[in-house]
Amino acid sequence: MDQFMRAAYEEALKGLNEGGIPIGAVLVHKEKIIGRGHNQRLQKGSPILHGEMDAYNNAGRLPASIYRECVLYTTLSPCIMCTGATLLFKIPKVVIGDEINFVGASDMLRAKGVDVQVTNEPELVTMMQTFIAEKPTVWDEDIAL
Amino acid sequence: MDQFMRAAYEEALKGLNEGGIPIGAVLVHKEKIIGRGHNQRLQKGSPILHGEMDAYNNAGRLPASIYRECVLYTTLSPCIMCTGATLLFKIPKVVIGDEINFVGASDMLRAKGVDVQVTNEPELVTMMQTFIAEKPTVWDEDIAL
Repeated sequence: MDQFMRAAYEEALKGLNEGGIPIGAVLVHKEKIIGRGHNQRLQKGSPILHGEMDAYNNAGRLPASIYRECVLYTTLSPCIMCTGATLLFKIPKVVIGDEINFVGASDMLRAKGVDVQVTNEPELVTMMQTFIAEKPTVWDEDIAL
Repeated sequence: MDQFMRAAYEEALKGLNEGGIPIGAVLVHKEKIIGRGHNQRLQKGSPILHGEMDAYNNAGRLPASIYRECVLYTTLSPCIMCTGATLLFKIPKVVIGDEINFVGASDMLRAKGVDVQVTNEPELVTMMQTFIAEKPTVWDEDIAL
């Protein structure tokens, strides 16, 4: 796992330790992390703070020129909401650590010209698989099932 | 303007009075507002809290069954991020108060089977037109231009 996916993983583990859903993300600009976050559904009662959205939010207000040089690292395949945010900001590259437990809207990212890389890291796949098995209702709620 | 679009308008005006971007939204379930919000870019330094996202967030955690009986009213055509959230939650109907100043991703909503109604209320169109003319840089930032 490279350093940025590891940082996203650390965010996911932070969420898990808080009793939350273990999904994390980091926004990287020129090899530097400028935003990091993790799913906040249980911690903040927020239906919109998925890991990716929390990272975008924590990065704060950024000019379009910065977004267009960023890479988003996320531990789990981004859902349609996080995909929409990524397209709004015109992030050119997304690295996905697990697209086995959930297949989000990465096809839409690709269709819009985003460079999508799927790494399927064993530690991430196992972490999410375990969480879904233990708390299926919470997981279903997170993806509005 | 019907009562729900008026409530979204009131949210937009609240944002304007706070020195923010005047876009508001309400989430309505069985003729009752269960979430309301307005753009929080300037107030909270948030790039993700568009009016619609703020309304979804303020509605809190909801079961999928509730989302599927909701109507989203928004004063301005929803961007791709807010469209993505609306599709994640499988909201069946969206009413847009202004699609003159900005055309978001309503075509994507329609393509996914969402009932989209565009009302183009003169008060809303004028409000946003005035804001964009006065603060074009802030507006561009909000849509990542």
